[in-house]
Amino acid sequence: MAAKASDTQRTKFVLDEKDIPSKWYNIQADLKTPAPPVLHPGTGQPIGPQDLAPLFPMELIKQEVSRERWIAIPDGIRDVLRLWRPSPLYRARRLERALGTPARIYYKYEGVSPAGSHKPNTAVAQVYYNKQEKVTRISTETGAGQWGSALAMACSFFGLQCKVYMVKVSYQQKPYRRIMMETWGAQVVASPSPDTQAGKKVLQQDPNSPGSLGIAISEAVEDAATREDTKYSLGSVLNHVLMHQTVIGLEAKKQLEKADDEADIVIGCAGGGSNFAGLSFPFAADKLTGKQKKLRIIAVEPSACPSLTKGKYVYDFGDAVGLTPLVKMHTLGHAFVPAPLHAGGLRYHGMAPLVCKLYDEGVIEAVAVSQVSTFQTAVQFARTEGIIPAPESAHAIRVVIDEALRCKRDGKRQAILFNLSGHGHFDLGAYEAFLAGKLQDYEYPAEKIAEALRGVPKVKA
Amino acid sequence: MAAKASDTQRTKFVLDEKDIPSKWYNIQADLKTPAPPVLHPGTGQPIGPQDLAPLFPMELIKQEVSRERWIAIPDGIRDVLRLWRPSPLYRARRLERALGTPARIYYKYEGVSPAGSHKPNTAVAQVYYNKQEKVTRISTETGAGQWGSALAMACSFFGLQCKVYMVKVSYQQKPYRRIMMETWGAQVVASPSPDTQAGKKVLQQDPNSPGSLGIAISEAVEDAATREDTKYSLGSVLNHVLMHQTVIGLEAKKQLEKADDEADIVIGCAGGGSNFAGLSFPFAADKLTGKQKKLRIIAVEPSACPSLTKGKYVYDFGDAVGLTPLVKMHTLGHAFVPAPLHAGGLRYHGMAPLVCKLYDEGVIEAVAVSQVSTFQTAVQFARTEGIIPAPESAHAIRVVIDEALRCKRDGKRQAILFNLSGHGHFDLGAYEAFLAGKLQDYEYPAEKIAEALRGVPKVKA
Repeated sequence: MAAKASDTQRTKFVLDEKDIPSKWYNIQADLKTPAPPVLHPGTGQPIGPQDLAPLFPMELIKQEVSRERWIAIPDGIRDVLRLWRPSPLYRARRLERALGTPARIYYKYEGVSPAGSHKPNTAVAQVYYNKQEKVTRISTETGAGQWGSALAMACSFFGLQCKVYMVKVSYQQKPYRRIMMETWGAQVVASPSPDTQAGKKVLQQDPNSPGSLGIAISEAVEDAATREDTKYSLGSVLNHVLMHQTVIGLEAKKQLEKADDEADIVIGCAGGGSNFAGLSFPFAADKLTGKQKKLRIIAVEPSACPSLTKGKYVYDFGDAVGLTPLVKMHTLGHAFVPAPLHAGGLRYHGMAPLVCKLYDEGVIEAVAVSQVSTFQTAVQFARTEGIIPAPESAHAIRVVIDEALRCKRDGKRQAILFNLSGHGHFDLGAYEAFLAGKLQDYEYPAEKIAEALRGVPKVKA
Repeated sequence: MAAKASDTQRTKFVLDEKDIPSKWYNIQADLKTPAPPVLHPGTGQPIGPQDLAPLFPMELIKQEVSRERWIAIPDGIRDVLRLWRPSPLYRARRLERALGTPARIYYKYEGVSPAGSHKPNTAVAQVYYNKQEKVTRISTETGAGQWGSALAMACSFFGLQCKVYMVKVSYQQKPYRRIMMETWGAQVVASPSPDTQAGKKVLQQDPNSPGSLGIAISEAVEDAATREDTKYSLGSVLNHVLMHQTVIGLEAKKQLEKADDEADIVIGCAGGGSNFAGLSFPFAADKLTGKQKKLRIIAVEPSACPSLTKGKYVYDFGDAVGLTPLVKMHTLGHAFVPAPLHAGGLRYHGMAPLVCKLYDEGVIEAVAVSQVSTFQTAVQFARTEGIIPAPESAHAIRVVIDEALRCKRDGKRQAILFNLSGHGHFDLGAYEAFLAGKLQDYEYPAEKIAEALRGVPKVKA
């Protein structure tokens, strides 16, 4: 494909705010076969809009199942996105020189959002539709805090109340993330909390419970389900969330045109899948429609939580407790508890169903990388390009560098594009551990995964 | 002046990397009378280039005393600046709406640099000239950590070693700033340290000394003066530092043209003076040369450290210990120890001589604001515009809002431009104190200042 390497000395490809996409790209329109339906956990039957209505506004439920290729982005959403969008596309010339590679490396930088990651792209959209449907309060859970921050900020823009159930161990270890949410006006409680029945039950059994994402989801869902004024919001995995993120890839395509270049390889880290999908789906469209056949798209996951590369493609619960509907996805089993990785955003037992579908069909590749080698590349990136990457994003950089070094060995002049989904300003504790040689790799716990997979419910696909 | 309000709905005025200024603006060319000379602390006579040669590369010494209006920015510096420059200019439409003001509020956002503030603009230039003159190692001090971070990053770009003496109390309270510097490869020690004679002396007298900027300066200067391979670097106050920051104002002027608007009021916070000067000097040029007579330029300082509004315009030492040359500036006395403000970057007893000269000549105004009211506006800004400002920058926002509300009362449609010099990601502890109602104001300590001023050396101006 792209042989027309643009070798001017430009490093940054900026767009005007009028270039913020006016439509989201919905990859469901281009799938050869529809994505498997979501099933009711009790009946095992496909769920309908009314099953989701207590939790989500109807417009988002419609988007979740829509097969329209393009969905218009309301002006009220674009008006907020322009506070940081379009995000810049960089050519990593300094990193290329340090590697001595003939490859051209580009990165889309989503850390320019005030919350520091790509998450506000969907938070703003979700809060907007909730406001349209007269919802005045939103509940959610957060682990490392990226998603909670994004939703808190979006709620402050639209004047909605925001309640965040933050996993207790994060609440204690990451006070800055909590304060950030409070600065934007959100109410943040450590989960398990005494504010819900689910939380109370856990606290009765173990007053010192450190909490988990599973427990926090249960609390946030209960909060929304039991209050008239409140709906629930999720920061990844769901179809509409991934679609809201496609502004990333749509902008990147325009920016590559400005660079007079085309991507040969597109790379993103994948936890729930939203930043990966945001960058890659608009490129995957060209593969699905036959326009681009040789393009490689690579999802990068941590070797300590390898849902795509080591999980099974089966129906499983989205949460750890087993309360959510059943979705078909690559999963390590909903009871799988990943090692205490510093890339908290990648510690999820499953993967977005749409990402899984593409992986199952061979449209995308997946690779798992270890924590220590990931931080090695993170530091190399910081010392050449300046930006200190979020540990999640650094997983993508690990594979970018591997591919760039392959290009060097083979004398290939390929163009590699990746998503630098956020900065690491709130993750410097992990950098400290790495620099002190205290960071560890987690071996792939084969028996642990096998055991967790035995807990996956039996469902006919 | 500017009556031609542009009222399209644009919020962001971006420039291409080719629009990074190719020359710095040197305000010394336009002063009616030259700035008072810097004096040798021993002889009381003006110092010459050779006095400074052990500490600074000759090119920076030349810039320090140059009266050329424009000084070319070498390509090797612009090549690094483009990693984040040009920085965006924003129209704060959401803040304007929240205030209900007819004023147009613009802000230049310097927090887009990887170190999170304007400081890298001069750090990159200083390291570049050191490298040109074969220096392989640079020493500096840092208090809150903004400057140390910027220099550490710049040294990593050019392959120089960097040693940072970090005030011990900051070293202990702000580990993330330290880790950031280490991620970029710098060596960071708590000051007082056993690495210098100055540090040893303090430690002998008080092993538990919390350190001070004065002690840290002494250590960094001794380090540079006693090693052949090492020079010293300063992040504010000096003429060449302020000049390197004028890229901010030069870009802002181009961006206001794109907005089809002109500033009526230009506002910046001022500690040592570098971000204030960086934005305002290119505008002050128009006042000095008679092109713009009605423009107001306002420096904002904390009421707990009011060097311009309450200090004396006399010769004083730049450091707390009394080792540096004597400079004529507005000072609270070099022995003045400011209250423990959260805006660490504004806790300096003096002010850049060039800023003082303009203040003395009535070209600029100054105003002091209190800490609590500053954080009120910081939170209001975060909840409308998204970005969480550094506490230093929030001082400017306090006055911006006061001026915007004055415009509302008086029905004036003025354009207000300010410098959002950095983000507050590493200052969230201060936000927590504010949100908990625990932040306090510091009364102007009249006797303390009077006492410190008695320690100012007697010099004939």
